[in-house]
Formats: sequence, structure tokens, C-alpha cells
Amino acid sequence: MELRTENLIGFDYSAKGSKKFQSFNPLTNASNPWEFSVATAAECQLATQKAAKAFEIYQQTSLKDRSKFLRAIAQNITDLGPHLLETYCLESGLAMGRAQGECARTIGQLEGFAKALDSGQYLEPTIDTADPSRSPIPKVDLRKLNQPIGPIVVFGASNFPLAYSTAGGDTASALAVGCPVIVKAHPMHPATGSLVTTAILQAAQQTGMPDGVFSNLNSNTFELGQQLVQDPRIKGVGFTGSVSGGTALYQLAQNRTEPIPVFAEMGSVNPVVVLPEALDQSDSWAKSYASSITLGSGQFCTNPGLIFCIENPKLDTFIETLKKELSTIEANSMLHPSIHKSFERGRATVEENATLIGQSKGNESLSYPGRGSIYQVDASTFANNPRLHQEVFGPLSLLVRCQNIEELIPIIQSLEGQLTGTILGTTSAIKQASKLVEVLKSRVGRLIFNGVPTGVEVCTAMQHGGPFPASTDPRFTAVGVHSMKRWLRPISYQNWPDEFLPEALKASNPLGLWRLIDNQWTKN
Amino acid sequence: MELRTENLIGFDYSAKGSKKFQSFNPLTNASNPWEFSVATAAECQLATQKAAKAFEIYQQTSLKDRSKFLRAIAQNITDLGPHLLETYCLESGLAMGRAQGECARTIGQLEGFAKALDSGQYLEPTIDTADPSRSPIPKVDLRKLNQPIGPIVVFGASNFPLAYSTAGGDTASALAVGCPVIVKAHPMHPATGSLVTTAILQAAQQTGMPDGVFSNLNSNTFELGQQLVQDPRIKGVGFTGSVSGGTALYQLAQNRTEPIPVFAEMGSVNPVVVLPEALDQSDSWAKSYASSITLGSGQFCTNPGLIFCIENPKLDTFIETLKKELSTIEANSMLHPSIHKSFERGRATVEENATLIGQSKGNESLSYPGRGSIYQVDASTFANNPRLHQEVFGPLSLLVRCQNIEELIPIIQSLEGQLTGTILGTTSAIKQASKLVEVLKSRVGRLIFNGVPTGVEVCTAMQHGGPFPASTDPRFTAVGVHSMKRWLRPISYQNWPDEFLPEALKASNPLGLWRLIDNQWTKN
Repeated sequence: MELRTENLIGFDYSAKGSKKFQSFNPLTNASNPWEFSVATAAECQLATQKAAKAFEIYQQTSLKDRSKFLRAIAQNITDLGPHLLETYCLESGLAMGRAQGECARTIGQLEGFAKALDSGQYLEPTIDTADPSRSPIPKVDLRKLNQPIGPIVVFGASNFPLAYSTAGGDTASALAVGCPVIVKAHPMHPATGSLVTTAILQAAQQTGMPDGVFSNLNSNTFELGQQLVQDPRIKGVGFTGSVSGGTALYQLAQNRTEPIPVFAEMGSVNPVVVLPEALDQSDSWAKSYASSITLGSGQFCTNPGLIFCIENPKLDTFIETLKKELSTIEANSMLHPSIHKSFERGRATVEENATLIGQSKGNESLSYPGRGSIYQVDASTFANNPRLHQEVFGPLSLLVRCQNIEELIPIIQSLEGQLTGTILGTTSAIKQASKLVEVLKSRVGRLIFNGVPTGVEVCTAMQHGGPFPASTDPRFTAVGVHSMKRWLRPISYQNWPDEFLPEALKASNPLGLWRLIDNQWTKN
Repeated sequence: MELRTENLIGFDYSAKGSKKFQSFNPLTNASNPWEFSVATAAECQLATQKAAKAFEIYQQTSLKDRSKFLRAIAQNITDLGPHLLETYCLESGLAMGRAQGECARTIGQLEGFAKALDSGQYLEPTIDTADPSRSPIPKVDLRKLNQPIGPIVVFGASNFPLAYSTAGGDTASALAVGCPVIVKAHPMHPATGSLVTTAILQAAQQTGMPDGVFSNLNSNTFELGQQLVQDPRIKGVGFTGSVSGGTALYQLAQNRTEPIPVFAEMGSVNPVVVLPEALDQSDSWAKSYASSITLGSGQFCTNPGLIFCIENPKLDTFIETLKKELSTIEANSMLHPSIHKSFERGRATVEENATLIGQSKGNESLSYPGRGSIYQVDASTFANNPRLHQEVFGPLSLLVRCQNIEELIPIIQSLEGQLTGTILGTTSAIKQASKLVEVLKSRVGRLIFNGVPTGVEVCTAMQHGGPFPASTDPRFTAVGVHSMKRWLRPISYQNWPDEFLPEALKASNPLGLWRLIDNQWTKN
């Protein structure tokens, strides 16, 4: 498969601009060979025009048609094989194993959304039947179902070149419900994005989807993204990245003449509370956490950035073991020089107020090593330094020593919103700490008992999104089939003739869906 | 029952400020006797502090307890009897019949949410069970359910002193899910609000709800509302009113350090399309629409402000009948001098480009009559004057004459988002107009066939909310039990010990709820 360096606008490749940029290989410390064309303002506008036009047709496609489309994308990505995985590695410095895992997850997500289309439950068909005899006013027939909101812009994520980029969760969930997608590719991995783009283009053509159902635009500056978010044809935005980036896009979108929903999944330090009772398994937790902190060079939104420990006689043993376990792990490369630089800057900030207590093994062959680092600080120093509460993107964890649970509670209360909160302990210990659990719950989207926050299961019961700034709207999730809800709005049909109702609402229930009829779930 | 003129802050009445204001009786053209105390900044802060404190307790209350609380409010409002209804009339100029109807709706809404708590479906319990044998990574147990987001501010609506004010839909839906509420009472009906406040206060005390679960603050200026929306303890806002008011609050909320959801239900002109085939029932539609336009002096968000007619031989007869029907209806008072003034100002704007073709009967005994008025304009004049697209709040409808459906389609496309869109015709006529229907659907939250947009059925399948500026987030509804979704966020519990899970997620399903377990609905 030829690697295209143009932008894809609907079914056409386009490179009208004169500006180019290259991605970077952090392992070889050199630019990758391909020169990608920066999309111009006119190309951006053409993409949004095509998306708006495509929406008219695409929203009318059947569940079955869109399911086929998603499955074709999955198949075409599979067919890209080693070419895709090798390109992924060249642009991220990540290992082949990670490339394979992330590719499998991307394909699994597409298939998961295809399955959700097979079941059609996401339409949430709700029917209240008429009662012409009701007095004083006869009751009308009302039938409601979810409809796609319109063209969506998806920003590729630096840390998930496949699973949260071109054909990742945001794109797949929007395409699933009938929204055309324009991807603003992440400039760190345009070649990976270009290959996946080809897979989507071919799938769209194979399954008869309209020109404009998908576009992929490249740029290494902010202007393109700003233009996309401000374009009146765009009706929603998906973003995974930094708090500053996500907040800027969110503000732009809210200040439009017609504000639109922006689902930005941003920073998180994922607090972990180690209750004294957990330290009976001190060795096993130390091992799990040394591994969780350094997984993927810590470049995960669920990385455990804060570990709160309650003072107890076994704590020093736990810390010693953690230190030892960490020292056996070799540093891997970070994704990009700029991410490495900002990691080192964040580390320097932490170092001003906290003490380094352990590091992973250095690796002198790397130009941009993400060296796993654990710092320690006492609770009152932590409480008085809000900069220590902020995420340092990379393999860094700050261990905060608290005298007791009472000292910890106001600290948890003062944290910003988080994706996850974890408690290590025993069930009897949790019983003693119910107030702590309540406070932690108020700050997070997912509560974990005796586990690590890394590893986000893609399933219906997953909530990946928490109070701001973990995400811009905690009422939605970025992972799992419920992420489709971000791009849907209900429409009610009142006394609408049965033959013109959408299939999901017809009296005969031709799709065989579960429907809420007069407040009872039924398939009749 | 004594009518209190203080603010209610949790369980305490408070009147620390020196500023006072009175409501106005448009029928007598005089101020009402009571002097209400404007809430001070300190009182406002105390209310949000109490609400935040109350949230800790209130979110833990059971479905049953909150259901009792809502039913007690409904009962206490019922017990207020004629005193409440008479006060309502004194502050609104509306007739006793409307007072009774709106009171019944308010009570019905409270009971509807109480019923929703009995069923517990709004929790949407979703469970994905563990699979320890899964390779390469064992699958964790994940259980998700909806939780309240925190204290909500509700702005009372000028046009619904009961059903969308103190204990109206916004308040009832928020209280139902476990969110404390602070009402910023509408300054046009503080006495009505004060009586309902007493009903809520008593219900809270009767059913053991925490101090701060509800507060009611009075003010006749903007500052109080702005302070409330910007207070970091407030986690969501419900508003019904003008586009300018709703947009201003929305922007304030989005520019907070922590942005919060604002559900504002704002302006709508509720386009109606009269297909030629509808005019076989010309007389009956003329009667229905003369009545719909003037209902409640046109002071409804679903008032039919635009009627698009396709030229045909029967059109002039329809217009003549509409004119005649309208002339038999006597004008009623508008809610307030300021609403009357702005209606007359809007009418003058319409008059610059359109021709008056019919009016309701004048009523010289009224100081602020809302005189039903129908104007006519041709399609191209309408298309070229965007000011004609805007809502005139009151009994005014603009009839737009179009040559054919092709001329109408781009006009509908150019309209802003709307709460409703209506088509009058036959099923065979709809078949011919499928493109028109699609375009109309893209602009609205509710599609109506052969009916009037006024009359909003309170039921599960109702969608009351449309693309901006009909509402700020068309993904939610302001009416019906699904309006509870505005104040909920999902939380996932990962590997959480069964005994500490919320009831709705426990293995034994003690609440007997329908739950989505491994993607299957079941009560097991």
C-alpha cells in the first residue's frame, strides 16, 4: 500500500498548500522520510462542506449498512498488517507488542460499535401511545428516538496513534450513529493516520457510503483545528489530550453563535489510596504499581500519578519494595522530544518540593528516555503546593505520606476532577473509610478496588470521563458503546403516520428492538 | 398560610438586605402589596454552602425517601388550595382556569418523578461481569450507574409561575435524582414562589431531608443569578426564558474555571407547514390555529410563530377563515407591562416588512392586552429579512406564502433551531414532501403531524429541547422523566466489593430493577 502524504477530503486526495511537515522517530532521533501537506483553510472548508452534504445521506443509512461499513474498516485495517504496525513504531518509538495490542483494540472497538448497531439499543426507542378518550384533552401519540447530531471533528491523540486517532473510539462512535467525521490528524503520527485513512476510504467506497462521510486533514499548527471547531457546519467535537488544548477548543466551541458539544478527555492524576491493611500484600502491590507507573512510559491518561499512603509500620517496607521493583524496569523511549521535554520540566517542578525515592533503570541508548520516577512528600507540603496536584505526563508518581485518613480526606476533596480513583485495602478497611470513599467518589468517573488504574476495559459498563478537567462533560464516556451517546439527540414524532416513522418506531417493530412502550420494556 | 417575603436559605428564612421589590398585577395595573427582600451576596453564598453540605447527605438518600419527599411537596401544594391559585392570578393576570391547569400539571410532574423513582430505571444500572480466565488479561468486573452531579440552580420562568418555577420541572427533576436545588425566583411572581417554597420546606422537614436541600432566593436584578452560576459549589443550571438571558448565563457557566452544564430552554418560532392537501380541512385548521396562537396570550415557548403556506386555490379561503376565527377571540392580558412592551416592539418590527391580515377582538378594559395578530409576507421578503425569523413572544403569527415546496426548503434550512416543527397535510402529501420533512427534522426537537405545537404532553417520549437556540443542549429534554438525565453522571465501580456497592448494582438486585447485564436486559 502506497503511503499518501496528501489530505483526504471525502473521496479525493488534496495537497493545495505549500507548507509541509514530517513526523519524528524518537528512537533514531531523526525525522521520518515522508513530507505531509498542511491542509489549507480552503481545503478545510471543502471538507466541512462535503461532510454537511454527506450527512444528509449518511444519517439515512440503515443500521445494517453502517455496521457493514465499520466492519469493512476493521477488516481493511487488519489487512494493512505489518506495514501499519511498523509505521506506528517509526512514529511513536513504541514497541511492536504495544502496536499489536493497540491495533487489536482499535479493531475490537470498531467491531463493538458494529455489534451495537446490530442490536440497535442505542436508539433508545420510547413510545407513549395515544389515548383519544382522555379528558379534558385527548392524549397524543409520541414516539422518540435518538438521531445523529451532524458532522463531528475528531482530534487524534498523541498517545494513541490507533485507538484514539484516525479510526479510533471517537471516530468509530460518531460514524456508528450516522455522523460524518473529519479527523484532524495528530502531527506526531501522520503516516500511521494516512494508512488508516486509506482503510476508511476503501471501506466507504466498498460499502457505498457517501463522499464526505470521512476526511483526514494534516497540520502541525493550531489554526486548522481552530477553523474546524468554529465552522458552523460542525456539530460536535471529540478530543483526547492536554487540559490546555482541550480547554482552548472547548472555549472556542462555546463562544460560537451556535455552541456545540465538545467532549474533551483531558488530564488526570488518578489518585490511589493505600490503606494500611493493603500492606499485608505489600510485595504484590509494589510489583503491580512499579509496572503500572511505567507502562507505555507512563503516557496514559489513567497513569497513577498520586499515591496516598497512611502511615503504618509496614509502609517503609512497601516503599523499599516499590523502589526495588522499579529499579528492575528499563526505561523506554517517550513518544516525542517535546513530550520528553515537558516530562522533564514537570519532574523538575515536582523535585522542588518532593524527594526522589526511586527510579527505573536508565537506558543510555535512548535519546528521549521516560525514566520511571517516584517522589515522596508529606501531606501538608502536598496540600500547600497545588502545582503538585497537576498531572506530569509520563512515568512519574508522587507518594504522599498522610498521618491518618482524617488528614487525607480534605486533600482528596481539594483535588480536581479525575478519571479514576483507586483504593487498596480490605473490605473491612473500606468499611472504616466510608467517608473517604464518598469524597473520592465525588472526584472521579471510575472507582477501583484493589487494582491499578491503567488498563481501560472497552465495555458497556465502563465510564471513561470524570468531573472537569478529567473531561469537559462527565455526563458522557469516551470509551465503550455508551460513547455513542455523545453524538445523539432525541427527536419526538407526534401523531406521525406509521409508514413515515423510522423503522425503530413503527408499530410492527420490524427491527425487533427492545422498546420502552408506555413505560414498560418490551419487544412487542 | 402566612405569605413570607424573606428568602429561604435551607430551613431558615432570611432578609439581611435593605433592597425590596414588589410584583405587579397587570389586570389592576398596580403593584401587589408584598415587599420581597432582595437576597444579598452573603445570603447567596450561604445558600450555596448549605446546598453543598446538604448534597453529601441528600445524594445518599434512598429512592423511596426521595419519592416520599416529592409526593409530600405535591400534597403540600395541593393543600395550599385557593390561596395559591389566587396569588398566582394576582401576579400573572392569567385566568383561574389556567392557574388550576398549571397547578395540576405541577403536581402531576412531581408525582411523575416520584413514580420514576419507584421504578429506578433512570439509574441505568449496567453490569459487565468478570472473566478471570480471559487471556492475555483477565476481565475485571465493572458496574456502572447514574449519580447526581451536585447542587443545581433553577431560574423561575416568567410564563410558568408554577410548572417551570419553584417546584416546577427543573426543580422536581433535580430533587428526584438527588441534587439539592437553589431557585432564583422570577421577580414577576415572588409571592406564588414563596407559597410553593413553604410547601417544599414543610415537605423537607416532614420527610427528614437535610437542611440546604432547597433554597429560594429573590431578586429583581441580574447580579444574584450571575453570582449563583459562577459559584464553584453549583454543578448545573436549569433555565427557561429568553435567548439573550439563557445565552448570557450559558457563557458565564462555560467560562468558569470548572465549566458546568447549563440546560437553557429558550426561544422558538415553531414553524408550521400547511401543505395544500391540508386545506380540505381548512375550517377546522383555521379554528385550531386561531386558538393555538392566542392560547395563554401566546406566551408559550411552543407558540406557532411561523406558518408557511404553499400557494393553492384554497389558501385565501383558509386565511379568511383564520381571520374570522381570530376576530371572535377576545384578547387577554399579558403577564407584565414589560412583556407587553416587548411584544408591541416585536410587532412593530414585523410590521415594517409584513402586512397585518387579522386580529383578535380588542379588550379596552385591559391595560396590557395581548391582541392576537396574524401577519402575511411573501417567501422572498421573509428570506431576506432574518429579523422576521426571530421569536416575538406573544400571540403573533407570521404567515409566509411560498410558491412551492422547492421555494420553502431553503427557507426552512435557514431557520435557527426550534423546539417543534409541524406539518399539516395528508399521508400522500407527506410522501411527496420527503425532502421538506428531512430538512424540518434537522431544525427541531419534535415533529408534529396534523396538530398544533402548543400543548406539551408530559411523558417519557416527549422531547422538549431542540438545536440552539431552542435550547443550549439538544441532547437533553426539559420535559418528561428523561429530563432527569440532565443532572446525572455515570460512575463505574471496578471489582468493588458487593457489600459496598449501591443497591442498584448489588449481585442480588435488591431493588428488582431492569439491568443491562453483559449487554442483555434482565431483572435477575
